[in-house]
Amino acid sequence: MRATLMYKAGDVRIENVLDAAIRQPTDAVIRITRACICGSDLWPYNGGPNVEGQRMGHESIGVVEDIGSDVQRIKRGDVVVMPFAYSDGTCLFCNEGLQTACVHGGFFGTGGEVGGAQAEALRIPQADGTLFALPVGEDDALMPSLLTLSDVMGTGHHAAVSANVRPGDSVAVIGDGAVGLCGVIAARRLGAEQIIIMGRHPDRIALAREFGATDVVSERGEAAIARVRELTGGLGAHSVLECVGTQQAVHTSVAIARPGGAVGRVGVPHYEAVPAARETFYRNVSVAGGPAPVRAYIAELLADVMEGRIEPGRVFDRTVGLDGVPDGYRAMNEREALKVMVKP
Amino acid sequence: MRATLMYKAGDVRIENVLDAAIRQPTDAVIRITRACICGSDLWPYNGGPNVEGQRMGHESIGVVEDIGSDVQRIKRGDVVVMPFAYSDGTCLFCNEGLQTACVHGGFFGTGGEVGGAQAEALRIPQADGTLFALPVGEDDALMPSLLTLSDVMGTGHHAAVSANVRPGDSVAVIGDGAVGLCGVIAARRLGAEQIIIMGRHPDRIALAREFGATDVVSERGEAAIARVRELTGGLGAHSVLECVGTQQAVHTSVAIARPGGAVGRVGVPHYEAVPAARETFYRNVSVAGGPAPVRAYIAELLADVMEGRIEPGRVFDRTVGLDGVPDGYRAMNEREALKVMVKP
Repeated sequence: MRATLMYKAGDVRIENVLDAAIRQPTDAVIRITRACICGSDLWPYNGGPNVEGQRMGHESIGVVEDIGSDVQRIKRGDVVVMPFAYSDGTCLFCNEGLQTACVHGGFFGTGGEVGGAQAEALRIPQADGTLFALPVGEDDALMPSLLTLSDVMGTGHHAAVSANVRPGDSVAVIGDGAVGLCGVIAARRLGAEQIIIMGRHPDRIALAREFGATDVVSERGEAAIARVRELTGGLGAHSVLECVGTQQAVHTSVAIARPGGAVGRVGVPHYEAVPAARETFYRNVSVAGGPAPVRAYIAELLADVMEGRIEPGRVFDRTVGLDGVPDGYRAMNEREALKVMVKP
Repeated sequence: MRATLMYKAGDVRIENVLDAAIRQPTDAVIRITRACICGSDLWPYNGGPNVEGQRMGHESIGVVEDIGSDVQRIKRGDVVVMPFAYSDGTCLFCNEGLQTACVHGGFFGTGGEVGGAQAEALRIPQADGTLFALPVGEDDALMPSLLTLSDVMGTGHHAAVSANVRPGDSVAVIGDGAVGLCGVIAARRLGAEQIIIMGRHPDRIALAREFGATDVVSERGEAAIARVRELTGGLGAHSVLECVGTQQAVHTSVAIARPGGAVGRVGVPHYEAVPAARETFYRNVSVAGGPAPVRAYIAELLADVMEGRIEPGRVFDRTVGLDGVPDGYRAMNEREALKVMVKP
């Protein structure tokens, strides 16, 4: 079968690899019908730790082709969404809804024995706990939005939950990438009254407004901080969704939270420490978040996707086949594309 | 009247100062019947920022002697407890229960126009919002416990609330000072099943056990972290109460929180940044806390003090008059005394 491998910064290739196959009785194998490229895939693409030959991709929808002897809940032929982390669904963390800490869990597309979703097929460990069977056919018109339940919509929602968004709140969203835009959807969905999107790309800002953003801050650095304070009556935002992961972004996030406010971090941290320990202390600002337990959020968000109340699939602005994946990385990296869908 | 002033590190004096008097129509003046020395008073005592002649003390119970023309709720003769921060009781933050962010608020005993409580009397700004009238006489036997509602019991409770302590949880308390011990009380009161006190002083550990601590970790550094993990089935604690404020303490706090756990910080931070930004992210550990809005907690905690369900006043192990205050600082600083009560 064909799959996406990254060799080093900027070097993404489609290669023939061994077919995905059952290894453990709890595994399933899915034929990938939709996958996509994630903003976090761009970190190694721009030179991170050594990724020599790493299988890429951690978001997909597929059709179950085979199941191991212990799989009971998932059946051949199911159309399933795959969270970016696999999880057994039974451990204490899964029971608490923190599947990204599952004691038998792990992450797709990060190397090792588990493959990536930018491929024709994928072995799914812990299939019963990991996969969520969708009530649609494999070419349903809602596929783009359903695919976001695999990561970006669940991650934007986790940012909002971690930042304690409540009805009537003012919310600032740092980052106009797909996760930030899904954060806007999530904030609105949870009842935020003011939603400030911080970004500069005109198309993304326009989409953020359609998703519910009420204000736009395109300034950078200290000017951006001052502008958010001004827009929030001098107080700062109740909730800040940090959807970038840089030192500058986390600095901004803690600076624009109001007293008693909360920062929800979902951008993979490329910084060592959370700055301004005294300032956050004196203002009683909390900092939470991490890898989103998207598995826990699928049922809740799925209902809104099925009813058309949210349309996170609009973050996809390009579709490619597997051969188009390397150029898809390039296009996302150059911000020519917001988020690229892959139809293997 | 006589009051406590700190001149520089180690130099605490009792001096005659101008009598406390009404300055604003929202002020009250109280005659101090009980005050105390706080662990945070020891920071300047050991050489912090310049404190030349600063009035000290931010915890007291007193009797209202005079009120300004706009004071309506508080009356002359009321026996009142004074939170360490004053607050108007009407602003948006006070309405949210975050009185330590009051837009007309501030802190006692930190210099400037507002005096300190280690004195014969004190002017109370925003008397209606700040003071809480107690249902007891000025020499009630419960005075020690009632006095802790001014700071340490409310602060220990805030640590527990910020660390999201819930029934059945495992809780680690960093620090065996008065706040840490009150944190043990708070954790037990909120239903924690396992309470690990981290400290080394035998008398304090013994008191912590009486307050409800189930385990003691007397190791330091990495050994302490390993021991807490061992005591919590390898997972770490659901909730960590950081009641010290040093770099080492905050490092330990984030290291011993389990996935999905929370750190509640109430130790005044003597560090610049919250370390381990990646580790806390990957484990979805939240960090919250700050100056406790003790005013918000008095009613709830008072009920338990009055009924004898909690006895935080047991943290006091020495009582002095005003003349004994300088030696009280010395004794607390040398850990000869746990917490010193002052009867002016």
